[in-house]
Amino acid sequence: MPTLTRSSFDWDRERAFAGRVTGMKPSAIREFLKLLGEPGMISFAGGIPDPELFPTDAIAEAASRITSDPELCRGVLQYAASEGHAQLREWIAGHMAQLGVACTSDNIVITSGSQQALDLLAKLFLDPGDTLLVTAPTYLGALQAFGVYEPAFAPIDPGAFVPHRGQHAPKLAYLIPDFANPTGETISREERERLLDAFAELDTPVIEDAAYQALRFDGEPIPPLLALDVARTGHIDRSRVIYAGTFSKTVAPGLRVGWICAAREVVHKVVLARQASDLHGAMLDQAMLHDVVSRRFDEQVRTLIPVYRHRRDVMLDALARYMPAGTTWTRPDGGMFVWLTLPDGIDSNDLLRESVETERIIFVPGTSFFADGSGERHVRLNYTRSDDATIVDGIERLARLVARHADLAAYRTESRPSLAEAVS
Amino acid sequence: MPTLTRSSFDWDRERAFAGRVTGMKPSAIREFLKLLGEPGMISFAGGIPDPELFPTDAIAEAASRITSDPELCRGVLQYAASEGHAQLREWIAGHMAQLGVACTSDNIVITSGSQQALDLLAKLFLDPGDTLLVTAPTYLGALQAFGVYEPAFAPIDPGAFVPHRGQHAPKLAYLIPDFANPTGETISREERERLLDAFAELDTPVIEDAAYQALRFDGEPIPPLLALDVARTGHIDRSRVIYAGTFSKTVAPGLRVGWICAAREVVHKVVLARQASDLHGAMLDQAMLHDVVSRRFDEQVRTLIPVYRHRRDVMLDALARYMPAGTTWTRPDGGMFVWLTLPDGIDSNDLLRESVETERIIFVPGTSFFADGSGERHVRLNYTRSDDATIVDGIERLARLVARHADLAAYRTESRPSLAEAVS
Repeated sequence: MPTLTRSSFDWDRERAFAGRVTGMKPSAIREFLKLLGEPGMISFAGGIPDPELFPTDAIAEAASRITSDPELCRGVLQYAASEGHAQLREWIAGHMAQLGVACTSDNIVITSGSQQALDLLAKLFLDPGDTLLVTAPTYLGALQAFGVYEPAFAPIDPGAFVPHRGQHAPKLAYLIPDFANPTGETISREERERLLDAFAELDTPVIEDAAYQALRFDGEPIPPLLALDVARTGHIDRSRVIYAGTFSKTVAPGLRVGWICAAREVVHKVVLARQASDLHGAMLDQAMLHDVVSRRFDEQVRTLIPVYRHRRDVMLDALARYMPAGTTWTRPDGGMFVWLTLPDGIDSNDLLRESVETERIIFVPGTSFFADGSGERHVRLNYTRSDDATIVDGIERLARLVARHADLAAYRTESRPSLAEAVS
Repeated sequence: MPTLTRSSFDWDRERAFAGRVTGMKPSAIREFLKLLGEPGMISFAGGIPDPELFPTDAIAEAASRITSDPELCRGVLQYAASEGHAQLREWIAGHMAQLGVACTSDNIVITSGSQQALDLLAKLFLDPGDTLLVTAPTYLGALQAFGVYEPAFAPIDPGAFVPHRGQHAPKLAYLIPDFANPTGETISREERERLLDAFAELDTPVIEDAAYQALRFDGEPIPPLLALDVARTGHIDRSRVIYAGTFSKTVAPGLRVGWICAAREVVHKVVLARQASDLHGAMLDQAMLHDVVSRRFDEQVRTLIPVYRHRRDVMLDALARYMPAGTTWTRPDGGMFVWLTLPDGIDSNDLLRESVETERIIFVPGTSFFADGSGERHVRLNYTRSDDATIVDGIERLARLVARHADLAAYRTESRPSLAEAVS
């Protein structure tokens, strides 16, 4: 093919794209995934399940059961309802009931992972400039999904939120109550009740991202915001809480199946938005998931928890053993992440650039998780995808790098002239 | 659960939703799908393939090959690149080359059916109020996908388009060059060349929806707009044409796999938009499709064509035999639809309401395919999903209903007082 040169047919691509494209940036995490294949590279980056724990036998059996029956096979190969696979929606309604949410399958719509739930909900709720409450930090994929609809992001501290009505009353809120991405922190029951008071006062719908909820290692489960709100309002169809669930962290992300559980009116609008977006999700995957989860969802979760709990412990122990003074981190009761705060003066983006070159560790710098681009002193570490030895080795190498940067930062601080000296 | 009554927690849902929600309406076609199961109902509604022609054996073999190999199975169950399955993208690049489009897999991104391609492209190209050229009529799912981004729809006649630059210069155009949905009509090669002249003059990118392109029954294939534009510009990376393909009409829609083939810069932006929308598509489906199409895509298309060609002929014969005078229709060289124009004075929405009750025939009224809601004299008929006897029976019943409505319309016209009488 000829070399690219300008010609009279070159089109003005800058003029061609919509305004919202300006804010679209590649996900740091998804870009790092490309480095994963490199030999010797240790990744604490993605929120990625351990593929060794995928229920491959159950998946293979389900695939065979469905595709070898011509009637079932034709069923999953044809166009289908935008709401999703009927029996899977029934199963999810039962699952939600176990979490304290009385509902029917009319309250459930299948989405392509919970990422699509965030996109469809932003499409339904956000006009440009609307105030959207998110924690700082929050899930970077949520910032990407919401950012397309050009809201004004405003920070919310789940433990100390005081509602203010008025011109900038929030249009929508987004929270990850259990083992949040990226901090691993959980909102207490008392805080959940106070948040629901505040959202009722503001009449603000809230998205409850429950991606990690099933992965609790320690302590008693706390009811989802949706369960608490259904108890308050008397019926899910009166609740402001919109629950986004997913099988990506419990069964397998490659199937791309999540769901929204909410008031029927919200579900109905999500279905309309999904019709316009992609008609419906892949049906074989939904049928397989129904087959797998109806037979062994609890067993699958029981398999994951001790493994991931142990890896969290290994990572916390290694951090305590190797990290230099001045480094702190969270101690999650579940989920996939530890959130590190580096000694003063270290920028985690600089750290990552050097880490990829020298120590061969990938992680996600904190700046990816803040709507305002702050967070440079933070690092998100994933512990679910590496074995014990890799976790210990990786943390030791990362700690060595942090110590080196801490020394440099301290040197810079010491050798910097004081204000008095500088102006004298 | 308690009866629904207003409570202090009822939220103001009208205030809650975004402005763009106002225009979201259920797809007439997808709503009719719900009537399909009713006994005795004949459907000429959806653009639905015949499930008996799905390659179920090849699908079952592919599913088994992939899921029974633990390594391959874990691969399709894990998170993956937003661009889509690498080998499938390679295969598609080769397929595009056969259509006259020299390209590499860097010019290909997988989408969840071509419906998602339309959503992602609208997201990338359309600011509210931007002028979007569409034929009148056009695919109703395109009107839904684009409508969310609130463009100003403007009609384009592919056979007689005169470009006007200036304030309302079109931001984007959307065409279905082969066997269009809903008319079944094809844009000639000469018209394609003139359209490309016009889009070059306007510097307007154009989406080429190629959903039905492979289903040509008669005559010689015409090169896609993209192929003609690559020949003009010398390289796909300089082309303004964005090709949206799909396996929904050739292999199976339930797998939800389509693709965009375009300049790398456009593909890169689509990948960013897809990251924010749903991360990536279901991977087992893409791997299965690669397995199936790399072994037998041509064979699959060769299986479909004689069956669908025969059904088109059966429908055209039945229309000629049964339809009353004053009814006209298109004679498609491929694809899935015949477009009917009813005798003057008949509204196809009234016809449908009565048809569902009495003759038990479902079809899509023309008004679904016009951005301005006109088209009441038209009816879209699908011939791919019914056997010969059903087509003949259905058209005879529909013709009976049209004849009755035509008589009524003629009676109304005759008994209506003339203007002179009315004002006298």
